[in-house]
This record gives sequence, C-alpha cells and structure tokens, in this order.
Amino acid sequence: MTFSGSLLDPADRYRNDENWIKARLDDSQSRYLVLWTLQVLVTGDEALALVWLTRSDVENELPGAFAAAPVFLGVDAEGAAYFAVDADGVAGETAPFPGSGQFLELRATASRLQGGEAGILARARSMVDWHKRHGFCACCGQISYITRGGYMRKCSNLACGAEHFPRVDPVVIMLIIRGDNCLLGRQTRFPDGMFSVLAGFIEPGETIEEAVRRESHEEAGIRVGAVRYVASQPWPFPSNLMIGCEAEALTEEITLDTQELEAAFWVSRADIRRVMAGDKTLGFSLPASVAIARQLLDRWVGE
Amino acid sequence: MTFSGSLLDPADRYRNDENWIKARLDDSQSRYLVLWTLQVLVTGDEALALVWLTRSDVENELPGAFAAAPVFLGVDAEGAAYFAVDADGVAGETAPFPGSGQFLELRATASRLQGGEAGILARARSMVDWHKRHGFCACCGQISYITRGGYMRKCSNLACGAEHFPRVDPVVIMLIIRGDNCLLGRQTRFPDGMFSVLAGFIEPGETIEEAVRRESHEEAGIRVGAVRYVASQPWPFPSNLMIGCEAEALTEEITLDTQELEAAFWVSRADIRRVMAGDKTLGFSLPASVAIARQLLDRWVGE
Repeated sequence: MTFSGSLLDPADRYRNDENWIKARLDDSQSRYLVLWTLQVLVTGDEALALVWLTRSDVENELPGAFAAAPVFLGVDAEGAAYFAVDADGVAGETAPFPGSGQFLELRATASRLQGGEAGILARARSMVDWHKRHGFCACCGQISYITRGGYMRKCSNLACGAEHFPRVDPVVIMLIIRGDNCLLGRQTRFPDGMFSVLAGFIEPGETIEEAVRRESHEEAGIRVGAVRYVASQPWPFPSNLMIGCEAEALTEEITLDTQELEAAFWVSRADIRRVMAGDKTLGFSLPASVAIARQLLDRWVGE
Repeated sequence: MTFSGSLLDPADRYRNDENWIKARLDDSQSRYLVLWTLQVLVTGDEALALVWLTRSDVENELPGAFAAAPVFLGVDAEGAAYFAVDADGVAGETAPFPGSGQFLELRATASRLQGGEAGILARARSMVDWHKRHGFCACCGQISYITRGGYMRKCSNLACGAEHFPRVDPVVIMLIIRGDNCLLGRQTRFPDGMFSVLAGFIEPGETIEEAVRRESHEEAGIRVGAVRYVASQPWPFPSNLMIGCEAEALTEEITLDTQELEAAFWVSRADIRRVMAGDKTLGFSLPASVAIARQLLDRWVGE
C-alpha cells in the first residue's frame, strides 16, 4: 500500500527527551528531508529516491531553517536520526537545492519511491502541514510552540497551557457490491472521465460500519447491509487514514446527492476488468494504484 | 457496541442550509439535550433515558443558552430535529433543571440507555467538547465561529478564513494473542487491580496494522505478525474512534515501557474466563462491557 511501509522506527520513547533530540540535531549522522511548498526533494529519473541532507547542507543553503524545530521522523537500524524540515518562510519563490535534485508533488512521487520511503514521506508531509496550519492555540488564541520532536504543540500562555496533537482524520472508503456489480461515482474535482468508489469522513459518535452505511445512503441513496474491513492506507492530503471496506448493497436505485457526486452507476466485474486492461470504449477510467480505491477494485476483480 | 447505534439520521444534507437550521431552532417539534460540565441530563433509575427539552424549557431555565449555536444531532423518522446545548457559561455551579432529571457522567450512563441513545450521546459529547476547546483559529489566533449546524468553525478574520472541522482521533486497541494466552497490561491511571488490552493513537503515515505493530512493540516489546480487524467503537473522551483488532504475537518476552504501562503479563483463556465468572483470587479485574476492550476479550474466550 503506497504511503505505508516506512522502515524507520518512529521511536516515541525519545520524543520526551529534549536533550536527546537536541543532541541528534547536532549529530553529523542525522539526516534531513526538505519540504518546500509541501513538495519533496527527490533525485532519480523513473525510480526516485528521497534526498537526505546533513544539517550543514541545509543551513548553507537556507540559513535560519532550524529556527522552527524540525519534525523527528524516527531512527534507522544503526540508530541514525531522521527529521523533516519545512523550507517555506526561509526559502524564496524558486526551489532551493537546485544541485541536489528536484521538488515534486507527492502523488507523482510516491509510487516511484522504493524501500518504504513513501511511508516516511507520508509522515513528513502530514506533520509539516499540520504545523503550518496550527501556529496558534485553538483554546485561547495565543501562540503555541513545538515540543516532543514535533508531536505536540503547547500553548505559550501559561494560564492556558493547552496541549495540541497532530490530527489523523479517519475516512471510510468502500466498494459497494451488489451481486456481480459494484458502484462507482465521480466528484466534480476528479480528472475528466475518472470514476472511483465512494468515501467520506467518519463523524464523532459512529463506528466504521455506521459511517459506511451513512455515507452510502447520503451520497447515492444506497442501503448497505454487511460491511467487511479490507485494508487501510495513510493519505497525507493533509492527514487522512483511509479505511477500506467492502459493503453489500441491499438496494439498487441510485439517488445522487449532487453536492457530493455528479454521477454514479453500477458496473460489472467484467467491465472493470476491460477498463483495467486499457479498453477506453467504456468511457470511464479508474484511479491509479497509488490509491486504496484501486486496490479495493483490483482485489474484487481478482477474486 | 456502547456509544454506537444512534437511530437519528445525522442529515448532512441540511447542515449547509442556514435557513433550515434556523427554522428548526424555532420549531416547537425540535428537542434539545443539555450538557453541563460535559455531564448529561437523564431520567430514570436503573434504566435511564436522555431528557429531551423544548427550546422554551431550556430558555426558561437558562436565558442566553442559545447565544452559542446548538449542535445539530440529526432528525428522527418523523422529521423532528434534535440538538445538543452546552449549559456551561450560562448555568451556575449547581446543576440546572433539578426538576427534570439528574446530570450524570457518560461512562456511568451509557450502558443504562436504550434504543441507541448512547450513540446520540457520544456524538453530542464529542461535538460539545470540541467547540469548548476550539473557540480560536489555530491558523491565525483570531476568534472562530460556529457554522453548518456545528460541524464547522470558520475563522472570523477575513484575511484568514480558515475552516476547522471536528476531530475524530483513531486509536488501535488490540488483543495480542500467543497460542492460548493473551497479553494484558495496566496503566497507572486504571482502577486498582484492573488490567486491559493495549491501545494507542494512530500516527500520521501509518496503516492500522502498522500502528498495532508499533504500539505492541513500544509498550511491551512484543513483535506482532498477523493483525485482524474485529470491530470499532466511538469513545467520546473526548472523541476517539477505537479500532479493535486481534494481533498474533511472534515473541513472548515482555519489555515494558514504564512511561506507558506499569505492568503486563500473559494470561490464559481459562483464567480470563475465571475472572469473568467473578473469581477474585487471580488478583486482577477486567474492563466493563461498555469498553471495546471487554468485547474483544469476550469474543476471544467465547471462540
């Protein structure tokens, strides 16, 4: 599953140890991944690799880059520490580190990375983005500061002192099945012609299965019975946990919520296979394999 | 599963319609659930029921209670709308509505409610608590305001305009199994003698299965192989989604992270059954059935 499989140990045990974190930031063995406008520095052509810089590499190009605390990503098997650095605010409008690689958007990058690097990247992107949008305390409005290697922000107002933690937003994504057909839908923002399975955020006070049933009914008017969990995927745009399920439809008639979907239809397993084989005559395309939506479809047609 | 099973339709389709929400707030058919210090107004003795008040009931006792927008909970089969009202800030230090019922803490209440009311309560408690702690914009520090029936806060600073959504924090909770034994542990904050299964928050950039493996190793030093999803539960303290799994241990030696657990041990299915049957001689107790931890244990010993 793309965006999973990091081989780093996230090493929660070190995060409370400020001295350990400080020592690693000064350690020449430590390595830094730079994000700029939420894109990531990579090298390579078809197969890509993340570019891991030393602290002096980063500071030579971007003085002041360490004023905002880097996010601790974990340690490798030899004990070397890895961090993410946000170049926004210290870099200009042209990409820094032109001699080291190129900055690419994550969706275009993830499936071309090897050895679990896309999992590291998912953590780095979600965490850096969270800090960008959470500089202030939601309880009292005062400035908050980074602590615990980036895994907590604490309010600077001593009378408040609220602690804030990175978000992970759980989302249900479900292949709705009726006999040998499944339901596909499209949102207006999708690329032309692309259809996918339905999805939606889990709300407070519901189970995974209840969220699947609610979203299926809200978006397409379909009543769902049995729900089976299949697999999950981190999706760092900005920080979703995609919870992939198969859902048995009890009804067939589609009633669209046009705020959510512009079209939806039932399609047979055979037709899904034809589209996967490259047949364009059916007039629709499917998500790329980077997305769990495609994994759910691949699994179903392979059964 | 306690805290699930709400029979209300959360009716996402109405939330963007300010006129609909306003009309329902003025509708004599609408009903209001009052929370006070995050406790809930209930009536009854052993079996409890939520107390649903009219707007005039609420305003007679608590003038100004509608100054902060109530949270929309959903509609029933007849189309009546239900809302949650936070009495804090308008009520004093003694409980309001003394003639209508009593305010109880949710853990003591949930298992004694009928007909899915605990599911409604979970949504109400998580949402009211979220608003209490998110009066300001985390992006810019200015005041934010409630919109979409309570499902969004928007920054009042036009130059920012950030949109903020209620949190649901996904947590893995796993029965770690090795042959006919399972692993139990206890945190210092647990009631005396109580042991439970392990749990921890899912972090950005990991799957459910990776979070189970990471937490099992971090907290108890146990390496885990296969992970099977079992069931999920909303846990409104403040707004967790408990994702219950069974996990096959690959190792047996326990290495405690004493920041997380003060003790852990392997226990046989037979001994779990004895404790469930009321045997106190084993020296430990188990969580009550309100918690998914107990449901995971019940299921395993029943196999």
